Amino acid sequence: MGSKAEHLVILLPWPEPTELLDKLKEKFPGLTIAYYEIAGWANTDGQATGKHIKPIPADVYKDATIIATTSLFPDTREEAPHLELVHVFSAGADRVIVSPLFKDTHVVFTNSSGVHGPQIAEWSILAALVHNHHYNLAYDRQKERKWSRSNLLSVRDWAGQRLGVLGYGSIGRQAGRVAKAMGMDVIAYTASPRATPESRRDDGYIVPGTGDPDGSIPSAWYSGTDKESLHTFLAADIDILLVGVPHTPATDKFLSGPEFDILAKRNAFLINIARGGVIDQPELIRALEDGRLRGAGLDVTTPEPLPEDDPLWDAPNVIISPHVSGASEAYLERGLGVLEANLERRRRGQGLINVIERGKGY
Amino acid sequence: MGSKAEHLVILLPWPEPTELLDKLKEKFPGLTIAYYEIAGWANTDGQATGKHIKPIPADVYKDATIIATTSLFPDTREEAPHLELVHVFSAGADRVIVSPLFKDTHVVFTNSSGVHGPQIAEWSILAALVHNHHYNLAYDRQKERKWSRSNLLSVRDWAGQRLGVLGYGSIGRQAGRVAKAMGMDVIAYTASPRATPESRRDDGYIVPGTGDPDGSIPSAWYSGTDKESLHTFLAADIDILLVGVPHTPATDKFLSGPEFDILAKRNAFLINIARGGVIDQPELIRALEDGRLRGAGLDVTTPEPLPEDDPLWDAPNVIISPHVSGASEAYLERGLGVLEANLERRRRGQGLINVIERGKGY
Repeated sequence: MGSKAEHLVILLPWPEPTELLDKLKEKFPGLTIAYYEIAGWANTDGQATGKHIKPIPADVYKDATIIATTSLFPDTREEAPHLELVHVFSAGADRVIVSPLFKDTHVVFTNSSGVHGPQIAEWSILAALVHNHHYNLAYDRQKERKWSRSNLLSVRDWAGQRLGVLGYGSIGRQAGRVAKAMGMDVIAYTASPRATPESRRDDGYIVPGTGDPDGSIPSAWYSGTDKESLHTFLAADIDILLVGVPHTPATDKFLSGPEFDILAKRNAFLINIARGGVIDQPELIRALEDGRLRGAGLDVTTPEPLPEDDPLWDAPNVIISPHVSGASEAYLERGLGVLEANLERRRRGQGLINVIERGKGY
Repeated sequence: MGSKAEHLVILLPWPEPTELLDKLKEKFPGLTIAYYEIAGWANTDGQATGKHIKPIPADVYKDATIIATTSLFPDTREEAPHLELVHVFSAGADRVIVSPLFKDTHVVFTNSSGVHGPQIAEWSILAALVHNHHYNLAYDRQKERKWSRSNLLSVRDWAGQRLGVLGYGSIGRQAGRVAKAMGMDVIAYTASPRATPESRRDDGYIVPGTGDPDGSIPSAWYSGTDKESLHTFLAADIDILLVGVPHTPATDKFLSGPEFDILAKRNAFLINIARGGVIDQPELIRALEDGRLRGAGLDVTTPEPLPEDDPLWDAPNVIISPHVSGASEAYLERGLGVLEANLERRRRGQGLINVIERGKGY
């Protein structure tokens, strides 16, 4: 785009981040920005869930070349004749793929995939550490003001043990990075084979200083979509299994009794930060009850919210949180980070990152 | 030592680890080993605290060239005429430095400094993650079988923030390694200046795959033993301060009101895995109460055990565990790892690691 003028319209549910926007304008002198704080995330029908803090003019999109938003954007080209790029502040694309603007035009859409790496990896490591350091017991004692080491000394730290990452995306890569620093061996599983160095790279947005950009962390790579491939991976002496695959018909109840039988070999700890449906939950409860699994950290369940009378709450050595691992106060900053990377790429005439591909049917 | 025969006498409070010992014998063909399981750690007077599982012969040390032990070893050279090396399974040297064998002979003593890096670093990272992910609240809700996100979404992950390590030893290095993998910037503080690359190296035992062997992790190094130097370090925008300095007259109440005033700049989180006495505890409680510190993770307190009526239990955002962070089931394996490294160095005629220096008065 050279030094061409850009007009960026931002519609987000946060107060205007003037410092971040000033930096952006400084970096891109041709850039003008109009910021509108919207109240709440938009519904899938494109209507904001709350009142707008500052009235949005009817012709807000008129001069926009770029829109950055949670999911509020025009339906048609007519409302935004100069529009070239829509950057959405979510990793998913539910609202995007049903919109006429996506279906009927060539406007480029990008998402914020990659911004969740640090916080969800932190949650995953937290769950593994809570388990092996018996933190819940320590916390219960603290509340009783009771200083007692009983049952707190049989700790096996994770150094020298092995993390298996089922679905080596931005979250799995960052968890792998931290686990390796903890002295663990890391092995990766992907749907399609990653035989070449190039295929192992992460070409999406990566929070600076995190992740595994060149895919050099795993000591071994496994792949496949069938159970046999999965079983080969699971049998590779895994001490912690991190589940980070999307929930699709192919991954529905991907982990069930036979898989827990294999994980029993090393009495593995299971972490699920993907979707509850990837795991056969009654079978998981059984594997926790009979000790095949040493424990589980679950930020996702089936269903959500998990009903009060669900037996999962009572399974031994289970850690449950209410689908909160993706929350981060850095969300806005990182979403703008994706946009900034793409503004730079537009200026240099390079292909963009985090492009939502048409016809892929996410 | 070339291929000279070595006789190793081991006196440890664990069942004989035959697999590990077989590996050692395989690696060092001239080595013979006599293993005695003792019941409990020895007192500082050299007497085991429990009964020996297997009777120890009166002349047990007669042929020993090396002894590996928690702290049971002969008082004089006469009992062990061939003795060249005593490896003790602790990081401290309390029992060693008062013994005649240490004071009156040239027998080399080595300790197990470095074996605690992974587990204590894990505990430190755990405390920081419990705090920023509001884990205690999530756990309380889980016990009530209550799925609620309220107050769980305001998470600021640690990526992009800064860890200050006060005392960059084996534990601080490993915590720094993990923090850097989490996307944090790491800065180090040492008593003596580390201006050259060589002075920044860790020459002691390091658990494989952990630590910071060449001191390349910190982006900046600070040093000194006076308050002015300390304040310069603390003012360097620290988000998490890890306290890992030994407790000496010079570090008694090293962190008090004025230091917490400086840490208030970034509303830091404090971690103490060293000794309670390094911190002015009443001042810490004040800094937590008035919010200068966002929280604290303490595995050590003053006194220990912490009495039930101590106000520290009730300080806001405090995490207390009863001095357990050093526990690891890998202790035996890693203590033998130090010994193995030194057997290798003896064979090659190299200087040993983890030597307890005479006249240093630990």
